[in-house]
Amino acid sequence: MESKTLRPRRVLIIGAGFGGIACAKALSKNDKFTVTLVERTNHHLFQPLLYQVATSSLAAPDIACSVRQVFRDSNNVTVLMDEILELGTETKTAVGASGDSYPWDYLVLATGAKTSFFGHPEWEEHTLGLKSLADAQGIRRQVLSSLEKAERTTDPVERKRLMTVAIVGGGPTGVELSGAFVDLVHRSMKGEFRRIDSSDLRVILIEAADRLLTPYDEDQSAYAKERLETLGVEVWTERMVRDVGPAYLEFTDGAKLEASTIIWAAGIEANPLAGKLGVEPADRSGRITPERDLSVPGHPDVFIIGDLVRMNDMDDKPVPGVAPAAVQMGDHVAKVLKEELRLEKTRYEEKKHELRPGFRYFDKGLMAIIGKNAAVVKSGKLRLRGFLAWIAWLFVHILFLIGFRNKLVVLLGWGFAYIRNNPGVRVIVNPPADAPPQGNSR
Amino acid sequence: MESKTLRPRRVLIIGAGFGGIACAKALSKNDKFTVTLVERTNHHLFQPLLYQVATSSLAAPDIACSVRQVFRDSNNVTVLMDEILELGTETKTAVGASGDSYPWDYLVLATGAKTSFFGHPEWEEHTLGLKSLADAQGIRRQVLSSLEKAERTTDPVERKRLMTVAIVGGGPTGVELSGAFVDLVHRSMKGEFRRIDSSDLRVILIEAADRLLTPYDEDQSAYAKERLETLGVEVWTERMVRDVGPAYLEFTDGAKLEASTIIWAAGIEANPLAGKLGVEPADRSGRITPERDLSVPGHPDVFIIGDLVRMNDMDDKPVPGVAPAAVQMGDHVAKVLKEELRLEKTRYEEKKHELRPGFRYFDKGLMAIIGKNAAVVKSGKLRLRGFLAWIAWLFVHILFLIGFRNKLVVLLGWGFAYIRNNPGVRVIVNPPADAPPQGNSR
Repeated sequence: MESKTLRPRRVLIIGAGFGGIACAKALSKNDKFTVTLVERTNHHLFQPLLYQVATSSLAAPDIACSVRQVFRDSNNVTVLMDEILELGTETKTAVGASGDSYPWDYLVLATGAKTSFFGHPEWEEHTLGLKSLADAQGIRRQVLSSLEKAERTTDPVERKRLMTVAIVGGGPTGVELSGAFVDLVHRSMKGEFRRIDSSDLRVILIEAADRLLTPYDEDQSAYAKERLETLGVEVWTERMVRDVGPAYLEFTDGAKLEASTIIWAAGIEANPLAGKLGVEPADRSGRITPERDLSVPGHPDVFIIGDLVRMNDMDDKPVPGVAPAAVQMGDHVAKVLKEELRLEKTRYEEKKHELRPGFRYFDKGLMAIIGKNAAVVKSGKLRLRGFLAWIAWLFVHILFLIGFRNKLVVLLGWGFAYIRNNPGVRVIVNPPADAPPQGNSR
Repeated sequence: MESKTLRPRRVLIIGAGFGGIACAKALSKNDKFTVTLVERTNHHLFQPLLYQVATSSLAAPDIACSVRQVFRDSNNVTVLMDEILELGTETKTAVGASGDSYPWDYLVLATGAKTSFFGHPEWEEHTLGLKSLADAQGIRRQVLSSLEKAERTTDPVERKRLMTVAIVGGGPTGVELSGAFVDLVHRSMKGEFRRIDSSDLRVILIEAADRLLTPYDEDQSAYAKERLETLGVEVWTERMVRDVGPAYLEFTDGAKLEASTIIWAAGIEANPLAGKLGVEPADRSGRITPERDLSVPGHPDVFIIGDLVRMNDMDDKPVPGVAPAAVQMGDHVAKVLKEELRLEKTRYEEKKHELRPGFRYFDKGLMAIIGKNAAVVKSGKLRLRGFLAWIAWLFVHILFLIGFRNKLVVLLGWGFAYIRNNPGVRVIVNPPADAPPQGNSR
């Protein structure tokens, strides 16, 4: 008989985003742990490039990889596709939509964020978010289908509505989407329509604050605005949305905007599963402030990482909701668990988090791309913009894609699109709801 | 005022498959015609590679291109996305699902074929067809999700059902799909599961006749069977399906097969729009036999091309339902129309089809791929099989892809998959119906 302490610890990781994958990788091939990674899709998604799927530059599989494939050679990691609905922190068991139970010794909650409508869940049905591959394809379908309908219609009011894309939220997602859309529709698709001019498509970027990209310096925000306007985006700052309905937005100043496509990139909130931890959220978006070691207050064996977290790190700097932070948190939890098993510090259960190392975020900076050939970079004291920043963006994203099979395919696709000025993934796979599949769609 | 004969003729082409595209291309940049090409999707699909999307080797956009983009520089071609529901051969007007009317001087019907269930439409809900990109993604989703469920379940009966893929129909589609599936699951995915062995997946190819690939020679059929069996496919010939239900098939000999995935590749029938021509169909699959010039009997200004056609050509050879035949028919109709306008043979309305050139099919032969490194080719007196036939298949398909932006991306993807034995497009974009999207899918 083996002694009890030799039994491998069961680590349950929920969510295969950047944080969950990093944590599972750091624990893989370590026989002290058996890791179960539960993810509701079958893939890990490279979210920073999701906007390129929405704007027809990349195909969905170019930015996703099979989670199962990532852990192929990690025999202590079991990947299961399920959606966790319940967390029993007392019974140390999670329950999935499949009905299956997942017991744990340690839980790592890494389910990320979802789109937030600031207390107006009813706005969701009139808008499109951008968090999943299905979302990205939904946006692509909506914009391309609207252009197709605009080419068909003879009603000028309807045509104007179909030719308007409103993007709410002037953060990186809004900036990237709006720049890529004008590039696609005003330039690449120019001359392809006979009754409309695709460069008449209005792309309106709406921000409540007085500038875009608020985490950046003011002159970088100004540069982004000027650059987007040169490309053909209408940038509306200091415009607060009061109401959203079918194909229209209303602002607090009483103005109304009719747009057949409304993309909501204005905010995120924690995945609701975080609410099942029994811990008071730290803010209205449902995020949770963990202990310094990333464990949940009162539950030293439950960790929370990635976009679910709202915290200041050991240097008292706020940790942003970006991929590198999630990766570093995943690594940190793995380090804590490995050290704990090594030292067997099980006696101090209650003050465990004080004995463990605290999380320290290494800030590599921020970057956002603004159409073709331009980006902004803010890293430490470094500030870049324009072509050089764009090259830096490209370099970092290519580096980050390492491990994705599709790195070369993505590069090639980008190369083509750049040289020929023509993104090639303009395919609506599933017809829109109002165009039922013909008989032969079967 | 221009004289009436100078007014460009309005040619309405319905369907942007191989035939419709060829016809529109042949009439493009010719100011005697204004062409309207109506297609219910926004893309032209390279159907011969559809099975590779279903088996995760290619992404959907790799084998599709925007119809609009194809005719970008053809000012006399207007592309519209709509689904034609009605044809008025007397009023010379078609009506779309959008409610729009499409008047014509000449109509070219090129809507192709759909899956046929031999008088059992109720079987459709229990099976998956392979005619569109959405179909291909549906098959991919079903097979990958079944494996995910098999990894989760503890019920051995359920696991066995989940680990069974039945493919009905031993034609090229069935042969290509079954070969690619065993390659994907038995080899590429091997070692990725912890509770099941993916090479236990049964792929069963079911054919009612006594051999696969009936249009080929008998020894080629025997070769295909032997080759598939070596790869790990179970080939069942002389098995007639009597009934199909949820996750099971029943055969005329009383046997029953439980399979969570049932792919129906057993037959096709004409798109129902052909039935609106008011012409007696030539066979039970609803195909129509046109006059020798491809016009519809009694309607010299209505043409029918592609998979809708059942005919013998001028040399009395039956024209097969393959892409080259559709292309040649599209070209032929364009030739007839151009000549008609040149000669102004409008006086002989009733016997017009006799004055026009008849269609002659140039048979380039048949080819089908059987897993990796093997294919069969039948062309004139030439018979190839094995690696050489596979190289020929590759060469022809690459040549055919010319004009598709994605040729190089496809080549690169194939190169990767070949060298690394690992198709990389194993992504389920939309979750299966029984796994509702989690909150953050928005």
